[in-house]
Amino acid sequence: MKVYEIRNGFGFDALTLTERPEPKPGPGQVLVKVHAVSLNFRDLMVVAGIYNPKMALPRVPCSDGAGEVVDVGENVKAVKRGDRVAGTFFQRWVEGDVTIDKAKSTLGGDLDGMLSEYVVLNEHGVIPVPEHLSYEEASTLPCAGVTAWNALITHGGLKAGDSVLVQGTGGVSIFSLQFSKMMGARVIATSSSDKKLERVHSLGASEGINYKTTPKWDERARELTNGIGVDHLVEVGGAGTLSASLRAIRPGGQISMIGVLSGPGEVNPLPILMKNIRVQGIFVGNRAVFEAMNRAITINRLKPVVDRVFEFKEAHEALRYMESGAHFGKICIRI
Amino acid sequence: MKVYEIRNGFGFDALTLTERPEPKPGPGQVLVKVHAVSLNFRDLMVVAGIYNPKMALPRVPCSDGAGEVVDVGENVKAVKRGDRVAGTFFQRWVEGDVTIDKAKSTLGGDLDGMLSEYVVLNEHGVIPVPEHLSYEEASTLPCAGVTAWNALITHGGLKAGDSVLVQGTGGVSIFSLQFSKMMGARVIATSSSDKKLERVHSLGASEGINYKTTPKWDERARELTNGIGVDHLVEVGGAGTLSASLRAIRPGGQISMIGVLSGPGEVNPLPILMKNIRVQGIFVGNRAVFEAMNRAITINRLKPVVDRVFEFKEAHEALRYMESGAHFGKICIRI
Amino acid sequence: MKVYEIRNGFGFDALTLTERPEPKPGPGQVLVKVHAVSLNFRDLMVVAGIYNPKMALPRVPCSDGAGEVVDVGENVKAVKRGDRVAGTFFQRWVEGDVTIDKAKSTLGGDLDGMLSEYVVLNEHGVIPVPEHLSYEEASTLPCAGVTAWNALITHGGLKAGDSVLVQGTGGVSIFSLQFSKMMGARVIATSSSDKKLERVHSLGASEGINYKTTPKWDERARELTNGIGVDHLVEVGGAGTLSASLRAIRPGGQISMIGVLSGPGEVNPLPILMKNIRVQGIFVGNRAVFEAMNRAITINRLKPVVDRVFEFKEAHEALRYMESGAHFGKICIRI
Amino acid sequence: MKVYEIRNGFGFDALTLTERPEPKPGPGQVLVKVHAVSLNFRDLMVVAGIYNPKMALPRVPCSDGAGEVVDVGENVKAVKRGDRVAGTFFQRWVEGDVTIDKAKSTLGGDLDGMLSEYVVLNEHGVIPVPEHLSYEEASTLPCAGVTAWNALITHGGLKAGDSVLVQGTGGVSIFSLQFSKMMGARVIATSSSDKKLERVHSLGASEGINYKTTPKWDERARELTNGIGVDHLVEVGGAGTLSASLRAIRPGGQISMIGVLSGPGEVNPLPILMKNIRVQGIFVGNRAVFEAMNRAITINRLKPVVDRVFEFKEAHEALRYMESGAHFGKICIRI
Repeated sequence: MKVYEIRNGFGFDALTLTERPEPKPGPGQVLVKVHAVSLNFRDLMVVAGIYNPKMALPRVPCSDGAGEVVDVGENVKAVKRGDRVAGTFFQRWVEGDVTIDKAKSTLGGDLDGMLSEYVVLNEHGVIPVPEHLSYEEASTLPCAGVTAWNALITHGGLKAGDSVLVQGTGGVSIFSLQFSKMMGARVIATSSSDKKLERVHSLGASEGINYKTTPKWDERARELTNGIGVDHLVEVGGAGTLSASLRAIRPGGQISMIGVLSGPGEVNPLPILMKNIRVQGIFVGNRAVFEAMNRAITINRLKPVVDRVFEFKEAHEALRYMESGAHFGKICIRI
Repeated sequence: MKVYEIRNGFGFDALTLTERPEPKPGPGQVLVKVHAVSLNFRDLMVVAGIYNPKMALPRVPCSDGAGEVVDVGENVKAVKRGDRVAGTFFQRWVEGDVTIDKAKSTLGGDLDGMLSEYVVLNEHGVIPVPEHLSYEEASTLPCAGVTAWNALITHGGLKAGDSVLVQGTGGVSIFSLQFSKMMGARVIATSSSDKKLERVHSLGASEGINYKTTPKWDERARELTNGIGVDHLVEVGGAGTLSASLRAIRPGGQISMIGVLSGPGEVNPLPILMKNIRVQGIFVGNRAVFEAMNRAITINRLKPVVDRVFEFKEAHEALRYMESGAHFGKICIRI
Repeated sequence: MKVYEIRNGFGFDALTLTERPEPKPGPGQVLVKVHAVSLNFRDLMVVAGIYNPKMALPRVPCSDGAGEVVDVGENVKAVKRGDRVAGTFFQRWVEGDVTIDKAKSTLGGDLDGMLSEYVVLNEHGVIPVPEHLSYEEASTLPCAGVTAWNALITHGGLKAGDSVLVQGTGGVSIFSLQFSKMMGARVIATSSSDKKLERVHSLGASEGINYKTTPKWDERARELTNGIGVDHLVEVGGAGTLSASLRAIRPGGQISMIGVLSGPGEVNPLPILMKNIRVQGIFVGNRAVFEAMNRAITINRLKPVVDRVFEFKEAHEALRYMESGAHFGKICIRI
Repeated sequence: MKVYEIRNGFGFDALTLTERPEPKPGPGQVLVKVHAVSLNFRDLMVVAGIYNPKMALPRVPCSDGAGEVVDVGENVKAVKRGDRVAGTFFQRWVEGDVTIDKAKSTLGGDLDGMLSEYVVLNEHGVIPVPEHLSYEEASTLPCAGVTAWNALITHGGLKAGDSVLVQGTGGVSIFSLQFSKMMGARVIATSSSDKKLERVHSLGASEGINYKTTPKWDERARELTNGIGVDHLVEVGGAGTLSASLRAIRPGGQISMIGVLSGPGEVNPLPILMKNIRVQGIFVGNRAVFEAMNRAITINRLKPVVDRVFEFKEAHEALRYMESGAHFGKICIRI
């Protein structure tokens, strides 16, 4: 079978399309024919060697993929041949609290990932996907979808009428927008592009803030909320945006720390104290979160926003496109 | 001013349209010109003397009303003349946990109610209502709306994808349906009338069960949920329906005990234990719940379902109409 | 090996000491040499055929036991030979929410239980026990200990200064008393015996109520709490005591439904509604609850109260002693 | 009456003992004869002009004091003459969520504080104190006590068996230690002094870490917790210690941001994300938290740790002593 490996060091050039023997499922395992993979910023950092410079190589990248169960090992009960499934980001974090062991089981990180024609996963490491979704759409769920759900619903306790600020138009942000609308919340979105802001409006955002033309977007967010600040804020920028986020949030509000797109840096934590803010780190989430999200997606017939689909041989182009930041929603690779 | 009093005993005949001097607001109080009142089953029981046979008389009935602030006393800061407001069910339960003192401050029960041309209330005993609502619509919120919100969202932690069973088509049930849809949940409704079930479908219920033609509605509810049972159930019937509700709910699910429409009775509590069920008593809720609900109603432009509006002089007819059980949603009285 | 079986029908006479071949652990399984078993009221009902008259026979009774891991199957990682462990009540409910499948995995109910010289269990169906406990003491934890912890701490959110009412002096009640004291709460205990009330005082209960001499124990509980009622109440009696419990609890308080010692019956649910009470069914709990409890028992060097230890051949006597209700705390069987 | 004012600028020299006419309580207000005040690091910053350089002067400093109600205004119901009370840190945050208005009502900050022979406060701005406490002991509760309780119990959901790390031996840290012990938790304390560590042991800390001799105290904290990290950490240092705290906490653990004793600075927020950490800002808390804490202190006969009591005329010496950092627990001023 064909598979991408990071080998002989990191960087785009180290990402190599190669061949491996097709794997066989052992007891409790399933063989999945992967039909689609979606990219996350993390995949870019993994390939670049920024995410974990000590990662054992060769390693198959990409945490997120969906496909069909084509074979099952002994004693497999949870799924069967023919099931349409996605892999779970953490292979060993099924439910309950996170532990160090559960956390060390990420696809495309601790373990080989999904950028492969076939993968063998534990039966509890795959999850059936909503029927109304294509494989490309389903492939967007494991990291970006679960992260947004875990932040806003599981940890954030989001309810109708709450205000949510989402930063930019990457995968997690667009899912956060969609889930917030699904739950009857009010969404304020930021972007550097008026064109993208038009699209977030069409997806249901109440207000958009162009942070190029309105650099003090946090002030604008407070203005839009009667001077109080927003209830929830999904922080994808990290150190570069967190200080402004701490100004944009209301006293007692919740910031979900999800990404570090703005790069490394440091932040003065004093406002966390003075405003009784909760900063909740969100590193994806467990399989139970995925299940709850799937139920909601199914009932509400929600469609993930797929920006563009690349062919399997175009993995490098796909990653470069993600790097460009031009996308709106998710980037997929068809296999 | 004109006002209805229960006097010289209970029963419909004891409800008398009479005159009282127009009240003046003291410090911290406001004078509200009442424009509309909505009825609850509790009002019927109050008038009948079933609710509290020892209630001190005369008493102005009806907990729920909306109107305009026409005068304010000294030191009033929370509202001003011209504000469109509703009264809060509990005049002294503003926020936080319930206490005995807070609970003994109900309009149309412990205190004179809203079936009056004017009322004087504490400034924190009124709450601004969403702009897009008429006074009739706004008058439906204090008891039925707040109860449904408190049950499903405050205590129930409802989220998109959850399943909710609502019983019948009274005020709380229809609000429960509407709020559940607003939050992306799946609603199963019961009714004795296929015609009413058609209407609940049009309001967004996924499934309806006619409990006349399907007396084992709990079995049907389990069938509709893969044999598991529903996540939330809003129990308005009381003892007469609770045993079936305990069969319709999933293990670990939540039943909100809200009403006793089916009359007095007793129930075997054993399934509560065996299925790890939470039975949460909901007696309306505090002003903070009302505020949260108002934000959601405003953002989502939700319209309460008003079945029929009576004139002020038709209070007896309005109560008899409620007694008949023919209504769908709320019954109002215009003042 | 020697083992007790319920066979050829129910009742004490059907409980038979017999022989079975010593089992071997398969992949992911462990062999435990059982050193001690403790009894629960449920075991009595199982043997009597009241608990589940359709139970497949023969069946080894008793959910709770502790012993030593003497052999492990392939791929076992969680425990090793020599570990001192207890079985978990639910063999498949490791963590997260309850499901029908997880619930149908009880020892001494759905599956053969612990009244046996050896048992084979899944590696996740055993849990290491605190070092300072004897096997008899450790054997009291799986059902009674976990139930009390799940009720008060996991679901009840107990905190220092809260008031807790425990009924009688059975296993769950004494654990509830001990955990409440460990958490700085105030405990009010009821009993029919002044002598037992002296013992609960010595275990830390602030007040005792003899419900023989003070039949209106609920009134007394309110008096002891400034007329308000207690914050938590651990209901072990079921229908026979629940109505009084609904009077003894404060508005907004929590009743944990744990047992039905008073036999079958029915209850008027109206006070649940009027007082905003939460009635939470507690059917033991998952392995994660057990782990949290074990940490607390270890840190606080808590000793379970063992009333009396019977020999293996005295299983009938032990059950009859439980039936008599004379015990204070737990009854054990040494193997 | 005698009173300290900050006037004509900030700094120790600006703190002046002066005279004001004795105030009279208006409607809903009470007159308190202050018997004792306790100091917080915030008071030092207020006097120095660091806390709020734009504070309107003159201002009476100190948020925390206790005394006797000696007169009450009209309509006061909550307290009566002769009651022993403390002031609440926030005069308008009685219960429920924080708002901007509630937050702007701090004693010794937004409003005149307690360093005065008499103060007039709102009836809901005072709270009865446990009977077994002296006025000095009671004066330690409003800021340090409530902060520790709000962090660990209200927001942290602390339970027996959890591990808690407290930094140093200031007021909040010692209360955190005491409340943790009261709740059956395990406490690890840090200090620069072995002598102080001896004292924290005698108060119930399981382990002490001298961060002078063990600069990598976070590593030591992980070692003491099987390599996992502590469950809760009460962060009083701010930017200077937060990075180490993020290493000392377990995945999924909670850091309560309470103080900035180490001065201003910045922190890399990345570990918050990668370890699923919750960083919860805690700015004291509301009156309902105070009430819950008082119940626990009463039931458990807890005694706050008073390091030293100064006379009223020695306010400057008291502040300088706090500045020196030599104290263990609370510093009080007798009035």
